[in-house]
Amino acid sequence: MEKLIALTMGDPAGVGPEIILKVMNEYQDKVIIYGSTDALSFYNDEYGYGLRINRIEVPDEAVQGFVNIIDPNDLKYGDFKVGEVSAICGHSAYLYLERAIHDALDQKVSCVVTCPLNKEALHLGGHLYAGHTEILAELTGTKSYAMLLWSDRLRTIHVSTHVSLAEAIRRVKKGRIVEVIRLGHETLRKGGYEKVRIAVAGVNPHAGENGLFGNEEIDEIIPAIEESRKEGLDVYGPLPPDTVFLKAYKGEYDLVVSMYHDQGHIPLKLMDFDSGVNITCGLPFIRTSVDHGTAFDIAGKNIARKDSLVKALQLARKLAE
Amino acid sequence: MEKLIALTMGDPAGVGPEIILKVMNEYQDKVIIYGSTDALSFYNDEYGYGLRINRIEVPDEAVQGFVNIIDPNDLKYGDFKVGEVSAICGHSAYLYLERAIHDALDQKVSCVVTCPLNKEALHLGGHLYAGHTEILAELTGTKSYAMLLWSDRLRTIHVSTHVSLAEAIRRVKKGRIVEVIRLGHETLRKGGYEKVRIAVAGVNPHAGENGLFGNEEIDEIIPAIEESRKEGLDVYGPLPPDTVFLKAYKGEYDLVVSMYHDQGHIPLKLMDFDSGVNITCGLPFIRTSVDHGTAFDIAGKNIARKDSLVKALQLARKLAE
Repeated sequence: MEKLIALTMGDPAGVGPEIILKVMNEYQDKVIIYGSTDALSFYNDEYGYGLRINRIEVPDEAVQGFVNIIDPNDLKYGDFKVGEVSAICGHSAYLYLERAIHDALDQKVSCVVTCPLNKEALHLGGHLYAGHTEILAELTGTKSYAMLLWSDRLRTIHVSTHVSLAEAIRRVKKGRIVEVIRLGHETLRKGGYEKVRIAVAGVNPHAGENGLFGNEEIDEIIPAIEESRKEGLDVYGPLPPDTVFLKAYKGEYDLVVSMYHDQGHIPLKLMDFDSGVNITCGLPFIRTSVDHGTAFDIAGKNIARKDSLVKALQLARKLAE
Repeated sequence: MEKLIALTMGDPAGVGPEIILKVMNEYQDKVIIYGSTDALSFYNDEYGYGLRINRIEVPDEAVQGFVNIIDPNDLKYGDFKVGEVSAICGHSAYLYLERAIHDALDQKVSCVVTCPLNKEALHLGGHLYAGHTEILAELTGTKSYAMLLWSDRLRTIHVSTHVSLAEAIRRVKKGRIVEVIRLGHETLRKGGYEKVRIAVAGVNPHAGENGLFGNEEIDEIIPAIEESRKEGLDVYGPLPPDTVFLKAYKGEYDLVVSMYHDQGHIPLKLMDFDSGVNITCGLPFIRTSVDHGTAFDIAGKNIARKDSLVKALQLARKLAE
């Protein structure tokens, strides 16, 4: 299979169309856009890119030298308001992703890169998912997956993500931690790490201080680390959450296993806000995503930065090789 | 009262003595050491500082041009092993702090700055406290206090600290949050902020997304913010925990209210590892502390950095004015 990348527009009322054009201006080779042809054409004229846009039905029809776009519902730029939540944009974002997943499962594209969608719009559009990841999991029948944030100097994979902190603590279970360590290890191997040094964070302050501040480390995390070591993985911990990220940042570890959403997101967003990439590990194909939202407040102004999307495309290509 | 600072040595087997000497070499004015005269003298000779050390009984006896030291139990350098946990060092660290608290309550010193102690040693020494803060609270009869981490570009105060994450969630209560906002506001005012812009973090991912991932924001945090605003404070939130620290770091807020230990400690330790200062807010006197531990692994090698202690002394002086 030729290594084509599916790039979904996300919510057309957000910064998706404009960052796609910024990137396609220098990087259109082997990328198929899933989105609104009309919105992309509007911005192409508005900002004077002068790119040649080619609407196609299937990836095989892609023509070199064009921005090739698959557009399931022919949404017009005039059908929505830039920067506003709408059912039609939420529904369109779903359709773009659905088609990209379909083509990835059919091996017509080798990986999927996603621009941000708006959850409220998605729900208004009739698709009651927490986000991209949940749609991807359901449409591919994937049960075992995890979110990994990847930046140049810091990478972390999460035991849980979009649940309350109380529920996140309940999900700190040996089996799940072993699974997440495995998924993180596989992904970093694909990303070029020969031997992956994995640090597992505790969930409690000071990693619980031997049970003084909570027992999750003793009951679940340490047994998971021991199990992973038996599988031959290079795993350390549980380490105090407030220093493990600095150690990883300085190069002591390649990957940190975070026990909940903010444990991993706070350091990643602080250290690499514009260039972080979000990877869904465990799917039948590689999926990366920009590490920011629709940014409705600045949408249509052409000031959104393309850095994260560039990184997402580069990393998807690397992982898919 | 003359503005004298009490500086406690903490565990004499840790890096306390050596960082005190590094600092006293350039900054001895109006500082009274509470610690082991013999340990300090040993390092003074060992590293060739040539400082004149003067053992006194009460702060009033301090002599200018000397390192003045109050030494409650005359611990000798030969009585313990550097870098090792021991009952005698834990007990000594307690005595140094106890005497400093006594002198602060008597207004013989205006503030207390502490070097790190080792909790295990403290317990072996017969003092069953979680750390400095708990000793300070008990010996001063303080019920309402909170830990604030202060660095040049980021400051955060914690709703709870040394408890399990599950217990920390249970402590996210309106009354406590209002109290912590108030304590943080008072402390930053003393530190020179005219109008304190306070950001309150959520406890759940995305600050709960309107109850989708937990209800603590709706039930406790928002009512606390409203209450604080009624008191005339400039309070924002609840803000998503994974972006609020970046906003504060960029200057949008002066203080972040963190809902649990690691929420505040992860970003602070990542951004300002060597110069962070720990402040206990709510005591009858100012207390600051270095933001690192005893570092037994490097104790006695004279490689520990003095940055955090310098900042702790400077900030204590500023807040006490």
